[in-house]
Amino acid sequence: MLDQQLANAPKLPRSQVGTWTLKEFVTESGIVLSDVNIAYETYGALSASGDNAILLCHALTGDAHAADSDDRPGWWGALIGPGKAIDTERYFVVSSNVLGGCAGSTGPASLKPDKEKAYGADFPEITIRDMVSVQKALADHLNVLQIEMVIGGSMGGMQALEWAIMYPDMIRKSVVIAADPEFSTMGIAYNDVMRQAIISDSNYDGGNYLRSGKFPDQGLRVARMLGMITYRTAALFKERFARETEDGEFQVNRYLRYQGDKLVKRFDAQSYLTLLRAMDSHDIGRFRGGLSAALSSIRAELLWVGIDNDLLYPPNDLIQAVELAKSCGVNARYAHLHSPFGHDAFLIEFDQLRDLIEGLL
Amino acid sequence: MLDQQLANAPKLPRSQVGTWTLKEFVTESGIVLSDVNIAYETYGALSASGDNAILLCHALTGDAHAADSDDRPGWWGALIGPGKAIDTERYFVVSSNVLGGCAGSTGPASLKPDKEKAYGADFPEITIRDMVSVQKALADHLNVLQIEMVIGGSMGGMQALEWAIMYPDMIRKSVVIAADPEFSTMGIAYNDVMRQAIISDSNYDGGNYLRSGKFPDQGLRVARMLGMITYRTAALFKERFARETEDGEFQVNRYLRYQGDKLVKRFDAQSYLTLLRAMDSHDIGRFRGGLSAALSSIRAELLWVGIDNDLLYPPNDLIQAVELAKSCGVNARYAHLHSPFGHDAFLIEFDQLRDLIEGLL
Repeated sequence: MLDQQLANAPKLPRSQVGTWTLKEFVTESGIVLSDVNIAYETYGALSASGDNAILLCHALTGDAHAADSDDRPGWWGALIGPGKAIDTERYFVVSSNVLGGCAGSTGPASLKPDKEKAYGADFPEITIRDMVSVQKALADHLNVLQIEMVIGGSMGGMQALEWAIMYPDMIRKSVVIAADPEFSTMGIAYNDVMRQAIISDSNYDGGNYLRSGKFPDQGLRVARMLGMITYRTAALFKERFARETEDGEFQVNRYLRYQGDKLVKRFDAQSYLTLLRAMDSHDIGRFRGGLSAALSSIRAELLWVGIDNDLLYPPNDLIQAVELAKSCGVNARYAHLHSPFGHDAFLIEFDQLRDLIEGLL
Repeated sequence: MLDQQLANAPKLPRSQVGTWTLKEFVTESGIVLSDVNIAYETYGALSASGDNAILLCHALTGDAHAADSDDRPGWWGALIGPGKAIDTERYFVVSSNVLGGCAGSTGPASLKPDKEKAYGADFPEITIRDMVSVQKALADHLNVLQIEMVIGGSMGGMQALEWAIMYPDMIRKSVVIAADPEFSTMGIAYNDVMRQAIISDSNYDGGNYLRSGKFPDQGLRVARMLGMITYRTAALFKERFARETEDGEFQVNRYLRYQGDKLVKRFDAQSYLTLLRAMDSHDIGRFRGGLSAALSSIRAELLWVGIDNDLLYPPNDLIQAVELAKSCGVNARYAHLHSPFGHDAFLIEFDQLRDLIEGLL
């Protein structure tokens, strides 16, 4: 019996969970951060030649915990493990919490190096490129020399794209899911509504709420509710909730409020704001002479993945980006996730993602 | 010179501006409201037989001022006046501020009949049908016997549709622009985010902010910013604002914040909430045995108008509604507004609206 249970148990990857401290990091804007902690997980083992790494980049509210573990599921657990699409018997998989995040890496809720108080509103504005620079330092620390594939969705896709541009000789394959070469005007607009909801919460106190201990939970809750709407589709909501009510309230509203309440328990508002700004900053052409010049530096094989009815990253925009990349000499192609879920499909449609990743690797 | 100036001056309709008081009104939910004021405007003159009326229904933040006047433009000024599509030489045009509004008609910011304090949060939940019932009472008061056309967009379109169902023998033509037979799940969801933004403003005080005089301006501002996003399109924002900045802020954000600030100066937050709930309630099939049963009672010629890339009321949904109406024996047809603006096109694309209205009348 025990043998059978063991045989049927999900095969978890050998994992390492750690935090590495980068002594000093200078942001794109020139701010010096000392003792930057990077929370990370690795699955599998690095080859002797240091060239079998796969790098995972998480989205806005994600974290380093990508693969399943004994105690809790990971955000891409279905894809990572022995014999899975991202096969931890073959690859050394690295997943880290982004700079500015709030799941172990240094961000606004972290104590400053003097350990006296948290950064709060003093935390600098950072960019997607800053996130990638920090990840590069971590990769160096882990003795990674070549990255077989960097992959991520949404804000993670922005990072995967920047990786291919910033370190072209290190990346063999980049998979950019539900992300664009420059964050769209509409994306900026939605972000600002979320931002205003948070900063106009009377508890926000100019970002210094950690001092009072009264948190801008209501603002963050509203922001998350709006975020959830943009991550899904009208058709999905209609099918799932229609106009049904419970206790006098529409089910769709109960669902959104529940999602808002849930995020508030695990996410720092100032970190959320910091990451929104980083997304806003995303424009691969910035300081590089435009999109084409930026794309031209890519050496990796580029797989760009769009999703049906993605409100924030319409497939047509991504198809155009692929065409532009091709015209710049990049080995780029477009793939499509069919899904009723919209943007969030990259966290849901594992069968299609498995096929895409296996096809690429 | 003076003659020429007069000749070139825009021809304004003869108008009457007034407020009528309905002694008692019982809402759908059974609440009795006394001394209900209805702010209205009329343009042109009623025929002796009382059968040349056109009824205009405004949208969420609209008011009774539809035609231009000496002192300010109306929301449909281009369409209403002598010789215009809605010809005030031929028709008696009636436009009123909805029940629950805050532009002259009784709503949450109005004093209760005892004149001691405003309704505030005591104002009852109302429905689109309540708005129409009050408009019917006004029409009776004005001696209108037959309505040649009832027309409106968005929340106004919901009213135009309910008019055709509630008073089938009184309505010859109904024009439903950018509105659906039942408010969608996604519409309900967006409304709830706006609602939560307002009620979680610490000044909201359970709807009793009129007592403190500290208004939930920040919440209403966030709600309006979100509303504006849903009324426009990604392509329009991209073309107009791209990723341009001024004073360190994205132009699209400056625009949205400006729109938010502007609404706060003219709109009451509790009225906004009341109208959101009325939109949520919109479902012509409610208490009537479903959509088909409701549509089957329509005698009017029904023109249903959809708009390119309307996020809230996708054209395909409206085309389906027209097909359903036809299958119920209604003389219904679909027309389409081509526009880069999205939902707000019904307040912008006057040339196309002129053609549609002239074709119908």
